[in-house]
Amino acid sequence: MPKIGIVGGTGYTGVELLRLLAAHGGVDLSLITSRSEAGRPVADLFPNLRGHLDIRFSQPEPGRLAACDLVFFATPNGTAMKLVPELLAAGTRVIDLAADFRIQEIPVWEQWYGMAHACPELVAEAVYGLPETNREQIRAARLVANPGCYPTAATLGLLPLVEQGLVALDGLVADCKSGVSGAGRGASVGMLMGEVGESFKAYAVPGHRHLPEIRQNLARAAGAAVDLTFVPHLLPMIRGIHATLYARLTGEADLQALYRDRYASEPFVDVLPEGSHPETRSVRGANHCRIAVHRPQGGDTVVILSVIDNLVKGAAGQAVQNMNLMLGLDERMGLDQVALLP
Amino acid sequence: MPKIGIVGGTGYTGVELLRLLAAHGGVDLSLITSRSEAGRPVADLFPNLRGHLDIRFSQPEPGRLAACDLVFFATPNGTAMKLVPELLAAGTRVIDLAADFRIQEIPVWEQWYGMAHACPELVAEAVYGLPETNREQIRAARLVANPGCYPTAATLGLLPLVEQGLVALDGLVADCKSGVSGAGRGASVGMLMGEVGESFKAYAVPGHRHLPEIRQNLARAAGAAVDLTFVPHLLPMIRGIHATLYARLTGEADLQALYRDRYASEPFVDVLPEGSHPETRSVRGANHCRIAVHRPQGGDTVVILSVIDNLVKGAAGQAVQNMNLMLGLDERMGLDQVALLP
Amino acid sequence: MPKIGIVGGTGYTGVELLRLLAAHGGVDLSLITSRSEAGRPVADLFPNLRGHLDIRFSQPEPGRLAACDLVFFATPNGTAMKLVPELLAAGTRVIDLAADFRIQEIPVWEQWYGMAHACPELVAEAVYGLPETNREQIRAARLVANPGCYPTAATLGLLPLVEQGLVALDGLVADCKSGVSGAGRGASVGMLMGEVGESFKAYAVPGHRHLPEIRQNLARAAGAAVDLTFVPHLLPMIRGIHATLYARLTGEADLQALYRDRYASEPFVDVLPEGSHPETRSVRGANHCRIAVHRPQGGDTVVILSVIDNLVKGAAGQAVQNMNLMLGLDERMGLDQVALLP
Amino acid sequence: MPKIGIVGGTGYTGVELLRLLAAHGGVDLSLITSRSEAGRPVADLFPNLRGHLDIRFSQPEPGRLAACDLVFFATPNGTAMKLVPELLAAGTRVIDLAADFRIQEIPVWEQWYGMAHACPELVAEAVYGLPETNREQIRAARLVANPGCYPTAATLGLLPLVEQGLVALDGLVADCKSGVSGAGRGASVGMLMGEVGESFKAYAVPGHRHLPEIRQNLARAAGAAVDLTFVPHLLPMIRGIHATLYARLTGEADLQALYRDRYASEPFVDVLPEGSHPETRSVRGANHCRIAVHRPQGGDTVVILSVIDNLVKGAAGQAVQNMNLMLGLDERMGLDQVALLP
Repeated sequence: MPKIGIVGGTGYTGVELLRLLAAHGGVDLSLITSRSEAGRPVADLFPNLRGHLDIRFSQPEPGRLAACDLVFFATPNGTAMKLVPELLAAGTRVIDLAADFRIQEIPVWEQWYGMAHACPELVAEAVYGLPETNREQIRAARLVANPGCYPTAATLGLLPLVEQGLVALDGLVADCKSGVSGAGRGASVGMLMGEVGESFKAYAVPGHRHLPEIRQNLARAAGAAVDLTFVPHLLPMIRGIHATLYARLTGEADLQALYRDRYASEPFVDVLPEGSHPETRSVRGANHCRIAVHRPQGGDTVVILSVIDNLVKGAAGQAVQNMNLMLGLDERMGLDQVALLP
Repeated sequence: MPKIGIVGGTGYTGVELLRLLAAHGGVDLSLITSRSEAGRPVADLFPNLRGHLDIRFSQPEPGRLAACDLVFFATPNGTAMKLVPELLAAGTRVIDLAADFRIQEIPVWEQWYGMAHACPELVAEAVYGLPETNREQIRAARLVANPGCYPTAATLGLLPLVEQGLVALDGLVADCKSGVSGAGRGASVGMLMGEVGESFKAYAVPGHRHLPEIRQNLARAAGAAVDLTFVPHLLPMIRGIHATLYARLTGEADLQALYRDRYASEPFVDVLPEGSHPETRSVRGANHCRIAVHRPQGGDTVVILSVIDNLVKGAAGQAVQNMNLMLGLDERMGLDQVALLP
Repeated sequence: MPKIGIVGGTGYTGVELLRLLAAHGGVDLSLITSRSEAGRPVADLFPNLRGHLDIRFSQPEPGRLAACDLVFFATPNGTAMKLVPELLAAGTRVIDLAADFRIQEIPVWEQWYGMAHACPELVAEAVYGLPETNREQIRAARLVANPGCYPTAATLGLLPLVEQGLVALDGLVADCKSGVSGAGRGASVGMLMGEVGESFKAYAVPGHRHLPEIRQNLARAAGAAVDLTFVPHLLPMIRGIHATLYARLTGEADLQALYRDRYASEPFVDVLPEGSHPETRSVRGANHCRIAVHRPQGGDTVVILSVIDNLVKGAAGQAVQNMNLMLGLDERMGLDQVALLP
Repeated sequence: MPKIGIVGGTGYTGVELLRLLAAHGGVDLSLITSRSEAGRPVADLFPNLRGHLDIRFSQPEPGRLAACDLVFFATPNGTAMKLVPELLAAGTRVIDLAADFRIQEIPVWEQWYGMAHACPELVAEAVYGLPETNREQIRAARLVANPGCYPTAATLGLLPLVEQGLVALDGLVADCKSGVSGAGRGASVGMLMGEVGESFKAYAVPGHRHLPEIRQNLARAAGAAVDLTFVPHLLPMIRGIHATLYARLTGEADLQALYRDRYASEPFVDVLPEGSHPETRSVRGANHCRIAVHRPQGGDTVVILSVIDNLVKGAAGQAVQNMNLMLGLDERMGLDQVALLP
């Protein structure tokens, strides 16, 4: 079985990768690194893994990582780009769950992420890991940039309309709401339950790093620049993203059929019946994106509702989906969990 | 002191009215009716009132209600309109917290609320109880239609722009999120904690009853019809509404100054400093609406963030504010609570 | 593959059975009945099942149920006892997730459940479905009484101490806390999120139906009557039970070794290392019971912490575990989910 | 009006003190210090205070503090004891909301708090600020040790039984549950919403610092040593403590009358009718402790349910109550808020 490594497995994306890989069956998770927790059994930090995964965190050593067939980076932005060149050179393939390789325009990336890119020469080679648009390139890729959580929900929601040129490309609105696990497992006052429980707010309205990523995705699909307003909000719950997307129709179409057909062969995109309102809990722990399309009062404004679990289709699940494609496995392998409801 | 009655005090709007009136100091709460709970001490149903309010629910009797100076209706839609004519005739003034008198066009009301109006002749007389637009009319009114929760948050957020003609009147978007207390205290599967906890969804996207109310408010302010898309969502928390409002600018203005000046003398509208993101908890239990204005990346789309407590400024608090105006009391009387944070 | 039926699948226990059986692999779920939802696809009511389960609710028909090899009753108390005799007579085996067959003393059952028992002659035959005490009898049983959620957590927590006679049998205390899903999916004011969110309370302190069940379990283990005080509480969350159990030691023992040895071969009971504090989330969606044993300050009072997911080990998961035993399948089949954390 | 200072007002206890003092009316809040936030308006950090409190954090300067009539310490344990001697010497009275002066036996305090006491000579003078037991001493005190949150709920719940010698003093159990605000506003992984939301656990079972405080309180009331097991738990909510207390009766008494009479003249202790189950939300934001007494099945075990808001009666509210007593004001001044329900 292919040997898999994980760099930086102590965050929420890391434990979710562990949950999925522990039950995957087609790969051998042989290495998980963490400087701070080296030597500690992963099931000690994450007791849900007791009885499922008997492995310890280890110090990151390039040699051991290079001995893997594929390595996931579940690290903060800016970490993967320093280590990836060496791994690729050693023949190890890489999926980066952070943002280092998502943005094709280096100056744009450097502006939004506030640092110089350490290996700009690899950015053009990196494949954006959204299987619904890039499946074949992912299969062959050495380096996959796993999409952001908001960009996954927003892009899948708007894609059929934008691809078909049915909506105005200016004035798009993505009003997105995320559970707190999207902010990660780092200590911070702002994410204490006492601060974010029983309350709701928008954040980063002047500009959020996922904005250029969503724009890039939609521009590719449209073949033209798009103007989109993106407002993220923080939900008083743990898992789930709900994107409420607004666009002005410029042509006529059977929207329900458009979405149904676009995603007919996609294993992880579920177009709901007309009139539906997807709940984030319907994808809790599952790799699905569920989408509903509305045209209120028959007007010009189309409203798309798109939900994912930010840690699954928005991060670790999509990474496993990409890994399956890269390794020639069934794309759905290890991703057949039924969402936990209630 | 003026004698006050409440019809239908067993819901969340009712208990919130009781909380505010118990500590008001300027009125005498002499009567609260409930068919189902008649004879029961209100503090038995709502133990937060123990020690603060020594009164029992009683059967609704028109005579006793008519002996009040002012009566609040905290009843389901369609109840107040049957009783109001008799009370007004007896000289009792009325504040309806439900929707019976909010919409001026009777056919529109009958279409959205699914019933015939019982006293259409009083609708024109009814004053829409938003003090920030109708303060003087409220002072003199016999009958006040207390605004809906979403319409309060959305209208206050968009008002300055619409009044000044600074935005396109088509393509307005109100993406609104409400805590579960907005759905009331009636038994239903859909509002069980097991159904709505740790999850998030939109609802009523094809059309919600507050849509014509918001449109009416904005049309009055604009002096022209407006086209607005309104999408309500349900938050996994109890109190609070967050309206995220999108509009396309058609002219130039200092938006921060516009809002600051518009609400400079309003006791319950708080325009936050530039760059702010109001949290719903900052108004929990308080009668304030807090607003922030953004223009992301200096583009044409303005984003307004507007938060209220749906049970206070969105219902009972605004009703007390209206009562104060009608009775010639200080508008802020009994409404000086500091929001509960955390 | 064995044919399986479910009577009454519209509650939380029902949807959890569906989640587990949809991914089981060793049985054929051929029938699920519901009077109120007959004809409706189950995935329409429970959208987490979309793509996983293509079956509709049907009217309960004894003939079709009797054609199953095994039938689960996920019905209110008092329903199964009316239908079980006919099914057993037809050779269909039964697991009742309700309480009809849990209490061996008929008068005790009738007192606590407030109705006459419809088939008292079957109660003695029914096997109490706690594999950790009754594994062999379950394998052979025609009729299994699936344990209650609180009794599962409390019994597994106290069992080693009581079996070994190490604690006083009077003065036992079971202070238990449950998520709201334990109250089921029926419409009620008391379980609205507006009522139970952000709050905590005890309930049924004068007496809860699970008290005689816990006492019966412990008395069997002790071979003597036990006196136990049971106080259930309602947590503002959806899934999970935490039992905090107090007993006075009457002898000396290595408590950690006692628990470790008692459950060494149990696939679904996990004794945590000394000093641990199990979190309910460590079993969310999983069939495990995790237990920690404490003896604060070396005193005479032993404190056991025992957590389960009330819908899994406390209901549907344990029922599947029992089904596996009855059908001669691997006891762990379909129950290998890693708990969802965070 | 008396001049009041607060040292360390950036935590949850601090903002709650500010909420209560902003609306108090009988004192002049003239100074609030914070090293980290000096210069910043308090309403900038805590936007619920906008419009209510126009004051900035300042650097702690002994001279300015000594100019106050009374100073609250809302600081971590170990801070107040370093500054109090100088303030008392200057004639300034002090209420310490931390634990520095709660435990009379210095070695016990030093053992549990892990540091040497900086002014042991003042400990004997310090008055334990539980008005229900020490009202007269508080009035005259220079230095008040404001009780801990758990000790307040547990002590008020057990006091009548222990004072009257009606229960065994060994084998007492205090199973206590607290909302997350009790852990303060410091950045930590363990209190992230992603860690503590939708989950429940016990903590510090081997020993919690509030144990010696509860024991001291009960021993004073009993006139003899008591043996109590205290298990704190963390609730997935923000405010509220629920103490479930177990004791074995050694004599007969009318328990309901005992509690009613003991607290008849207490403005902030509310004994509920027989059979009640207090909810924490019934005291959210209020200074009340609500108590219910049960004797399940008429047995020997008495179960007391005691709820407080940990930030009000468990911290800032009780501190204001003590301040009122010390300053000769009405004990209830500024503490008449109705709890926020729902």
